[in-house]
Amino acid sequence: MQNLTPNPSYSLTLQVQLPNQAGMLATVLAALAEAGGSLSQIELVQQTLKISVREITVNAFSSEHSDKLVQVVKELPEVHLLEVRDRTFNAHKGGKISMNSKIAINGQDDLAMVYTPGVGRICLAIAENPSLVRELTIKGNTVAIVTDGSAVLGLGNLGPEAALPVMEGKAMLFKEFAAIDAFPICLATQDVEEIIKTVKYLEPVFGGINLEDISAPRCFEIERRLREELNIPVFHDDQHGTAIVVVAGILNALRVVQKNITEVQLVMSGAGASGIAVARLLREAGAKKIIMCDSQGCISRDRPNLSAEKLEFASDHSGKLQDAIKNADIFIGLSQPGVLTAEMVRTMAKEPIVFAMANPTPEIQPELIEHDAAVIATGRSDYANQINNVLAFPGVFRGAIDAKVTKITTAMNLGAAKAIASLVSANELSRDYIVPSVFDPRVASAVAAAVQYAAQQEGNT
Amino acid sequence: MQNLTPNPSYSLTLQVQLPNQAGMLATVLAALAEAGGSLSQIELVQQTLKISVREITVNAFSSEHSDKLVQVVKELPEVHLLEVRDRTFNAHKGGKISMNSKIAINGQDDLAMVYTPGVGRICLAIAENPSLVRELTIKGNTVAIVTDGSAVLGLGNLGPEAALPVMEGKAMLFKEFAAIDAFPICLATQDVEEIIKTVKYLEPVFGGINLEDISAPRCFEIERRLREELNIPVFHDDQHGTAIVVVAGILNALRVVQKNITEVQLVMSGAGASGIAVARLLREAGAKKIIMCDSQGCISRDRPNLSAEKLEFASDHSGKLQDAIKNADIFIGLSQPGVLTAEMVRTMAKEPIVFAMANPTPEIQPELIEHDAAVIATGRSDYANQINNVLAFPGVFRGAIDAKVTKITTAMNLGAAKAIASLVSANELSRDYIVPSVFDPRVASAVAAAVQYAAQQEGNT
Repeated sequence: MQNLTPNPSYSLTLQVQLPNQAGMLATVLAALAEAGGSLSQIELVQQTLKISVREITVNAFSSEHSDKLVQVVKELPEVHLLEVRDRTFNAHKGGKISMNSKIAINGQDDLAMVYTPGVGRICLAIAENPSLVRELTIKGNTVAIVTDGSAVLGLGNLGPEAALPVMEGKAMLFKEFAAIDAFPICLATQDVEEIIKTVKYLEPVFGGINLEDISAPRCFEIERRLREELNIPVFHDDQHGTAIVVVAGILNALRVVQKNITEVQLVMSGAGASGIAVARLLREAGAKKIIMCDSQGCISRDRPNLSAEKLEFASDHSGKLQDAIKNADIFIGLSQPGVLTAEMVRTMAKEPIVFAMANPTPEIQPELIEHDAAVIATGRSDYANQINNVLAFPGVFRGAIDAKVTKITTAMNLGAAKAIASLVSANELSRDYIVPSVFDPRVASAVAAAVQYAAQQEGNT
Repeated sequence: MQNLTPNPSYSLTLQVQLPNQAGMLATVLAALAEAGGSLSQIELVQQTLKISVREITVNAFSSEHSDKLVQVVKELPEVHLLEVRDRTFNAHKGGKISMNSKIAINGQDDLAMVYTPGVGRICLAIAENPSLVRELTIKGNTVAIVTDGSAVLGLGNLGPEAALPVMEGKAMLFKEFAAIDAFPICLATQDVEEIIKTVKYLEPVFGGINLEDISAPRCFEIERRLREELNIPVFHDDQHGTAIVVVAGILNALRVVQKNITEVQLVMSGAGASGIAVARLLREAGAKKIIMCDSQGCISRDRPNLSAEKLEFASDHSGKLQDAIKNADIFIGLSQPGVLTAEMVRTMAKEPIVFAMANPTPEIQPELIEHDAAVIATGRSDYANQINNVLAFPGVFRGAIDAKVTKITTAMNLGAAKAIASLVSANELSRDYIVPSVFDPRVASAVAAAVQYAAQQEGNT
């Protein structure tokens, strides 16, 4: 695997005891730096005449690298490593979300209102007028994050339990960026019909369904059927969330290099759920020339046994990615680490745009093509131009819930993409700034407004 | 329906504008009192030389009574009723629970730890060692409150949407009394097999399943099968929660009248889920003589087509409840309002115990037998001796989760009942104080400890 820059997802806190002498701390820091660690916080815990105890936080780039950093410190003479804490693991202890009451229960009167007997009147009111469920329960602001654990991040079929930390993280983002209450539903089945049925059974509690980390091509069928059969919006984030943000990024990258989307040659690596959805939304945005590749190379029309989705983007091109990419304007990777090389980028058209979004390790390490590509984007927060779904899904659901739509449409998705792109002004736009920060407070409301506008235009409520 | 005492579940806030003259407020209050309203808060909102605006909160005993109180105020000369707010409805606006992050997301570093790429390491760790899911996700402290809406409170088959306010209230109680994160799952199916399958699919996210408001006899099969097939504790609160608290109350009521559980004659009205479970746990506690009645009268062995559960408690007695109750020591009602009359209570053995727990309106209004019964208990918070499941379920789940049991057993339930009963000391015990207050902070921990103790004794982990 290519070496990546150290980042806080591999963050260790080392508690070390040193002799209280000049130069000791410097020795430790030098050893860590030499081993490739990136130093963060350094705190003094205790100091006597003889010793000092410090907590040194250091970022690594992989688990092996973390182990190496620990080893380096252990081997230093006179230094005692008292404790190693992995900050990411610590942050996950006990889970990352909690359920809380909105109303304090301070006595019998409160209990009689929020529970029996008072709650009985609310139940009867909803039974009589079912539309009240959105007003008088959590349904009006609650989204299910549904997965079967079959395609967890870029890590594969890890199963529903191992997917739960991602879904919890997603629930945090829903809350943080759009004030939506979301709850993880990790299903112990990977059968398409069973998943569809289960989600239908869960509909009463939720105002929307965010499908997540479900492998292709099953995810297409699941989403299609649920969209037909449910009365609440269904959104497969890996498809549409990714598509919205990629299209936003591509629109602005094209502004940087001053090319027109209708004219550029796009090559895509990866024909999974997100790849197909990105290609579809790019087409809606005006793209005409797309060559799609999967792990076998170009998806050509004469390949046997193509899925309906791959057939949709099959072309006359055959051969490998390295053939297709010659003279292409844009590379979009949603596939595997390392499939793109600097040599291949150098065969692209002038001012090439490279979106290398394999997660967590991109198709190519950005440092390798810094001088070759005009614009580079990845899925990572530690490089410029992070293509992060969190720019899209909170606002999309906020808009869909507020507009009370029953479906999230292509027009809404395209509106959302343009809304995100529009937040980067002409002044700000540069090769290193094509999408707004995920912490830009305007994003979710701009996306929500675009979704609501599209809903009004379509009369979709 | 019998008139009940006014209570806060029918609480109105009336905003009235009165001429600013001596005696005007008194006139309004007198009119409300005369109409049977029970006055609560009175707040001055605005006062000028000419007028005053006040908010008067008044409790009614039914929806019709609420309407009457509003009418009475409307008819007063010189009084303008500006606004009527129903406090119970207001408390439910937007739902009663919310999902919150435990960790603030203050920047890219936090994002990289709680979401991608850092979360990927947690996923891989769980995939490698599945038992870590309890430590690194919400599973270790999260309970699903599962219903199909087929038996909502005592109100019948209102469906899953109308059941949601109850489940939200329950989630509040889990948090308030046992620091457990609970989430409502209201299923849009009432098919036994589909419910069982769905709950099995949901298992990855939850550390326990609280079944709620599922009608008999379906609830028995659902609970039995889920207990067999899941690796997390399953507890049907309408059965076992009720049974635990009723048995706690009966044990202490027997202390009041100084009778022995092995000798007393019990008559039960109601052979639904809770009735059967109460009878079973009473038997475990030592009760020998139980006559069970349903809406057709005594469940006698020669009645055709009895369910397995009813057959379990069928006896030689036939006839109606009014026959069975003659000379009985204890009446336990989990049935319908009005099935018990004062005349019937007067035919019971001396110092009769009456548990009238139909919800929300008891089998008999306690005022009617105040001088006939030695001990009276109901399900209501506005009378002494409230038999409220909230005394049991939070502690039961706290204990079960902490002891990491896979099943909640009869021994745990009986232990919980005795723990609750033991919190009423000999000094405190009286006809009006047989169970601790639901706000007694010792309850949940005493119950949890009893459950953990039973788990150790049984080696159930």
